[in-house]
Order: sequence, then structure tokens, then C-alpha cells
Amino acid sequence: MRHSFLFLSLFFLCLTGINAQKSPLQINAERLEAQLQKLSTFGMNSKGGNDRVAFSDYDLAARAYLTEYLTALGLTVEIDAAANLIAKKKGKDQSLPVIAFGSHIDAVPNGGHYDGNVGVIGAIEVVETLIENNIQTQHPLELIIFSNEEGAIFGSRALAGKIDQATLEVPTASGYTNGAGINRLGGNTAHVLNIKRNPETLHAFLELHIEQGNRLHQKQIDIGVVEGIVGLKWWDVEITGNTNHAGTTPMEDRKDALIAAAQFILAVNEIVTQTQGAQVGTVGRIKAYPGAPNVIPGKVIASLEIRDLDAAKINYLFQQIKKRSEVIAAATQTQFEFKPIDATAAPALTDPRIQEVIRQNAEALNYSHITLPSGAGHDAQDMAVLTPTGMIFVPSVNGISHAPEEYSTPEAIAKGATVLLNSILAIDNILFED
Amino acid sequence: MRHSFLFLSLFFLCLTGINAQKSPLQINAERLEAQLQKLSTFGMNSKGGNDRVAFSDYDLAARAYLTEYLTALGLTVEIDAAANLIAKKKGKDQSLPVIAFGSHIDAVPNGGHYDGNVGVIGAIEVVETLIENNIQTQHPLELIIFSNEEGAIFGSRALAGKIDQATLEVPTASGYTNGAGINRLGGNTAHVLNIKRNPETLHAFLELHIEQGNRLHQKQIDIGVVEGIVGLKWWDVEITGNTNHAGTTPMEDRKDALIAAAQFILAVNEIVTQTQGAQVGTVGRIKAYPGAPNVIPGKVIASLEIRDLDAAKINYLFQQIKKRSEVIAAATQTQFEFKPIDATAAPALTDPRIQEVIRQNAEALNYSHITLPSGAGHDAQDMAVLTPTGMIFVPSVNGISHAPEEYSTPEAIAKGATVLLNSILAIDNILFED
Repeated sequence: MRHSFLFLSLFFLCLTGINAQKSPLQINAERLEAQLQKLSTFGMNSKGGNDRVAFSDYDLAARAYLTEYLTALGLTVEIDAAANLIAKKKGKDQSLPVIAFGSHIDAVPNGGHYDGNVGVIGAIEVVETLIENNIQTQHPLELIIFSNEEGAIFGSRALAGKIDQATLEVPTASGYTNGAGINRLGGNTAHVLNIKRNPETLHAFLELHIEQGNRLHQKQIDIGVVEGIVGLKWWDVEITGNTNHAGTTPMEDRKDALIAAAQFILAVNEIVTQTQGAQVGTVGRIKAYPGAPNVIPGKVIASLEIRDLDAAKINYLFQQIKKRSEVIAAATQTQFEFKPIDATAAPALTDPRIQEVIRQNAEALNYSHITLPSGAGHDAQDMAVLTPTGMIFVPSVNGISHAPEEYSTPEAIAKGATVLLNSILAIDNILFED
Repeated sequence: MRHSFLFLSLFFLCLTGINAQKSPLQINAERLEAQLQKLSTFGMNSKGGNDRVAFSDYDLAARAYLTEYLTALGLTVEIDAAANLIAKKKGKDQSLPVIAFGSHIDAVPNGGHYDGNVGVIGAIEVVETLIENNIQTQHPLELIIFSNEEGAIFGSRALAGKIDQATLEVPTASGYTNGAGINRLGGNTAHVLNIKRNPETLHAFLELHIEQGNRLHQKQIDIGVVEGIVGLKWWDVEITGNTNHAGTTPMEDRKDALIAAAQFILAVNEIVTQTQGAQVGTVGRIKAYPGAPNVIPGKVIASLEIRDLDAAKINYLFQQIKKRSEVIAAATQTQFEFKPIDATAAPALTDPRIQEVIRQNAEALNYSHITLPSGAGHDAQDMAVLTPTGMIFVPSVNGISHAPEEYSTPEAIAKGATVLLNSILAIDNILFED
């Protein structure tokens, strides 16, 4: 322990040294903004939102446009079996592992124009700035546009080796299954289950993204240093009581599953809120059966979601909630059953060394910054299992996301892209050791 | 007041005298049971339930069968404009107002074989017993099979003058609207809005019915003397909060409409339970929007139903609930809106003199009895606005109703029909005065 601390201290001292030596490089904010505007035209709908769901014609068209643009910049564009679009820029030493960075361009139905897009266009702006300034990094660079982030975090999970046959058969918002969808984009279902990336080929991964929450905007902070992407678990909670006539059954004879559900919903909120930390717990879906105003509900099915950076804490909270539900069941003469839903994601921590690189570069640029978890899932969570990973957040106005009103200012985005650029340059000079 | 009390006392003394004079007449329990079994064959489904919904082919067939049966007994069968089937038996004095009695034979989808049927077959058994014993009442008798009780309490409401054009256009479980449905059964939409019964043509109305609740069965009581049919009011309760990402929105920044709904559901239960009386309050339907496990519900729509024998109490409870919802709204940063649903029914009290007739006859037959409200709606509630009305309940095993498992024992039903028979004979000798 003492040894690692000494190592880390020396490492940070070294970083400070690097930053002190050169003044930070700046990206072209106007070009970045124009490119973002251009990308938003692919899938723009009448409500001002974006319908560029993964595998749609809009997705195809946008990828074709970006392929042409990246090729014109001199990059080599490849599509892997998972339909990830990978644009490669050579490093001075092609034998070194790759610095990868990127995000996604697919949207939720009637989504916004910033989620994913900012990370991809920011990454392109970084590459363009490097080219303009005749900078070639030591490490080769890979700009990755991951396939179907919104629907299944598909492309990055494929690189992490987490895709199986069942995933391929899941239908998506486009109407195509994941399998049919990736084939449409130039992927290959015959090979996609075998493209787990060899960690030794990677030096680091960085993703720039909008926060999608309201912390940065509310506190007027420029840069969020993401400490990790929270894990989540889902359950279907089935509560069984006794269906009966609401007119003929006295209050004291009822076994009302919805009364039990109401107590459960408040218990979840209480347990999650009273425990120290940034964890969240949500009941977002509920249905009472048979569901008529004049029938006492004999069954309720509700969802339960818990998110935290620490898988053990998710489990602890769930056990607390389960224990409380036994008390509620006894008091209301009902039964509780918890069925896990296959939508779990393990928490993914970013690399503390890369966090510090981002922090130092924000400092050097005089941008305010805080360290925070990401409550939403991102491609970075799967890249984090392969390589040291960092994530840079920029403020979302009012925290709105997945809606046409999603917005981040051009100034905020430019700051994020500038931090991304300088962080890549810093990482190029660092040798990570485990 | 004092005068009425004296009158009632004399009246009850007189009743006691009547009962003491003759030993009660008995119905034929075996024939009654066989007729019930026969009726249940019309609409019996593979789950053991009954699908004889109003206006269905099963309804038509059962009514044709009963028409034939009643005609063979010597009664005159008529269908009124509301498709009520009315079988008439002459009294010794045809100028006297009519003693009416009956119930319905339509069922809810996949319902049981006792709700309604017991009252109709019990009434037929009463008539058959009178004929066998060569008893002709002073008052003419009318055995009424009301149309579409389950769907709209249609036939009895038409006699009470409560049907309007909109009611005719409402679709029913049969697929036919009420209007098309009654025409199918021999009714007449051209006249149905004008068949409000002249109260002067009626002496009294009696209905035998299964309890549909569990009080009689639980306490092993033979006869329920119904003191009234509770009124009910329905509301749609719309709770508005703020839809947001469940991952990126901290607990303290949420305006979760489902948290507010949970507090509301428990408040309804608490307010209704803590107030003295037999009132009931139910939230039976709930939906959270958008209704995904990973989205904080921004809107919840739930139903609220309150039932009581006293309309003022329903209103009092609603005001209490509404007041409490304002407190919940403030605490959860949500808004509540209550929208009345057009499904209200005013409470209907039965006639205390007829209650006493039923009580006295149960006593004379050595049947145990209690006085209780009906939590469910019945044709009697509309007949009560026209004429002194009484209702006789027999036990439902485990209180189950509107389900294939609905059951009352042949013995219990026979006791109810015997009380009905003797109550009709007693009422035939009473002159009601207001």
C-alpha cells in the first residue's frame, strides 16, 4: 500500500511537470459547432428532436457522411464485425498500443442532438486540430464510433466480449434485430461474437460526453471528471394479495396488493435516501391487476432499479429492501417475489491516473471541474474492462437528455473537446503500469 | 316524529300478529336447485364460469327458455321497451298496485352462476309454490327479469327514468350497444326513454340475491336484511411530477409522481379506515408514465372509488382525501387533479317496514339474520326510488363473486326463497302509508 502511494505521488508530480512545460493546444470551436449542426440534420424530425436510432437509414447516412469526412482528413476508416466505425491515425511508433477515443451517433427515438454526438464530433475536432498543427502522437490513434449504444451498448460490449447469440436476436427501435442491424452497417454476424479486443493492443480509452444530469449546469462547472459509470440492477417485483369486490369487501378483510406496493415504493425511497452516498433507487413501472376502479387489486407488478458505483452497495441496498418487504408482506397479508431482469450492468470505475490527467488539463486551461459518477451507461463502461479509461463530461442545460430539449452550449462543448485533446497528448507521454 | 314512532310501533305489533297466526309456507328446494342448474347451462364455459353477458345469444336463449316456462305456469309474459321481461300473475283485486319482485340473469364475462340467477329462479319458485297451493294474493304480482344489470343496471334504471340517449350508445361486453342490445331482446329504443314507472302502480319491490361479500358466510348467518345499497363515486386522480433519467437524477432532485401516488394510496386507506362506519375506499387502477424501469415517473393516473350508504359521508371522505393530497403535493413537489368519472350511483335505502317484514319472517322460520348494507349495486337500488323496497341476501361461500368459483349452497338459497315467499304474502296484507 505504502509503495503504491509513493508511486502515485511521484506519478502526479511528473504530470504536473508535463503540464507546466507547454501551454495547452486549442481546438476550433466554430468548426466543431458547425460539424455538430451538420450531424444533427441526419434524422432531425418535425418536433425538433432526432430519430437517428441505431441501424436506421439516418444512421447509415450519417455514418457514410462521417466516413467520407474522416477519409478526406487522411484517416483509414474500417468497420469491424460489430459495425463499430474505426478511423485510424498512425502514431510515430506503430508498435505501441493504441490510444482510442470516441462515442456513438445513434439516438433514442425523438432524442436530442448532443448525447453521443458531442463525443464523436469532439473526437473528430481533436484529430483535425492535431493534423492542422502537424502533431503526430507516439501512439497510434483510433477514433471509434460505436454501434447501437442507446439500444444495447452493442459495439463496445462486443469489443469487451460480452455479446452472445441472444443479443443478436433482440429487436431494436429501428425494427431490425441487433444482428440484422450490424450487417446493415457493414458488420458481420458471423464474426461478431469473436472480436473481443486484446487489451495489449490498447494504451487507453477516452470518451467526451454530455452529463445528461444537472450537477455541472446547476453549479456552473465546466468539466466533470467521471470517477466511474454506475452499475445497475433491475427486478420485477410481484406482489400477491387477494382480488375482491371493492363494494362488498370491508376494509379490514382486504389483502390489497396495491396497499403493499405503496408501502414498498416508499420503503425503497426511504432506504435509498437514508443510506450515505450517491446511489439511486427507482420504481418506474407499476401495474395493478385486474386494474378496475371497483376491484381490489390482487396482484401488482412493479419494477425496481438500483444504481451505484459499488456492486456490493447495490446488493446491500437490495437486501435491505427485501428485508423490509417481508415486514410489509406480513402487515398487509401479501407476498413479495423479486425476479431479476436481465438488464444488469456492473459498475465500471475509470482509471484514477486518467482522472488526474483530465483534472490537471482542466486546471491548466482554467476550467472549473468536479469529480462525479455517471448515472447513465456509456460505451466507456465496457472499454474500462479492457484498458485504462477516462470520461469527460460537459454540462447539459437543466440536465435534460433523451429529449428534443437536450442542449449543451457551444462554449461548454469546446471546453470539453479542448480537455480531450490535451488529455490525449498527456496520455501519449505516460507509461501506464499496473 | 312522535306520531310516526307510535304508528311504526302499532305497525310492528300488527306484523307480529300476522306471523303468529299462520305457519310459514315452504318452497320446493329440489325444484329450485334443478332450475338453477338448468339456467346455468345457458352460457356455461370451459372454465366452469358463465359467459351469459347481457344481449348475447346465451342471454336470448335463457330468456326464451324462461318465457316458455313462465307462460306454461299460466303467467302473462311481456317485454317492455327496456327489454325487461315481466311475468304477470293476477291478484284478487286487479285495481290494487303491484307487488313486484325479481332480479337479473345476465352475467359478467366468465362470471358465476348465482349472481342474479338466485333472485330470478327464487322468484319463479315463489310463484310456482303459490300456484301449487292455490294462493292468489290480493295485489297483482309482477316477476321482473331486468335487462343488462351487470353492464349498466339498464332495465331498472329505465323504469326509474334514469336512462338517456348517451346510455343507449354505450357499448357492452356483448359487442352490442345498450340500444342495439335491448332491441335484440325485444325492447324498443324508440320508447325506452319514456317508460319511467308511475309509483302509484307499485305496492312494493323485493329482490333476493347472493351477498357477494363474506359477512353472512363468515358468521354462518342464514339471511341478510339489506338496509340499503351503498352509493359510489369514482374519480381519476392525475398526479404530475417531473419525468427524468433514473440514473442521472439524484434522489433529492426528483419530483417523482409515483412516490406521491404511493403516499396518496396509503392516505386513502388511512382516512377511510379511521373514520367510523362501514364505508370503503379503493384505489384499483394505476398507471405510471412513461412507465419504464429506468425513468422517474412524471405522471401517474390512478382511480379512486368511495362507497357508503350516505352520500354526505362520501363527500366528507373525499374532502378529507383531497385535503391530504394537498399536503402530499407540497411535500413531493407534485400536483394533484381529481376528475370525476361518470359512474356515480346515489345511495339507496331500503324501506324500514319491509326490512322488518323480512326480519319477522326469518324469525318465524328460525333462520338467523343480520341487517347489513349492500356494497354492490343492484336493480333494487333503482326500484327503491319508485316504491317501498326490500332486499334479502343469502350467504356467498367465502364471499367470492363475479368468478366461476361463486357459490351458494342449495340450503342457503332455499331459505332465502322461503323468506321471499312469506315476505310477499305478508306485504300483501300491509297498507303502506307515507
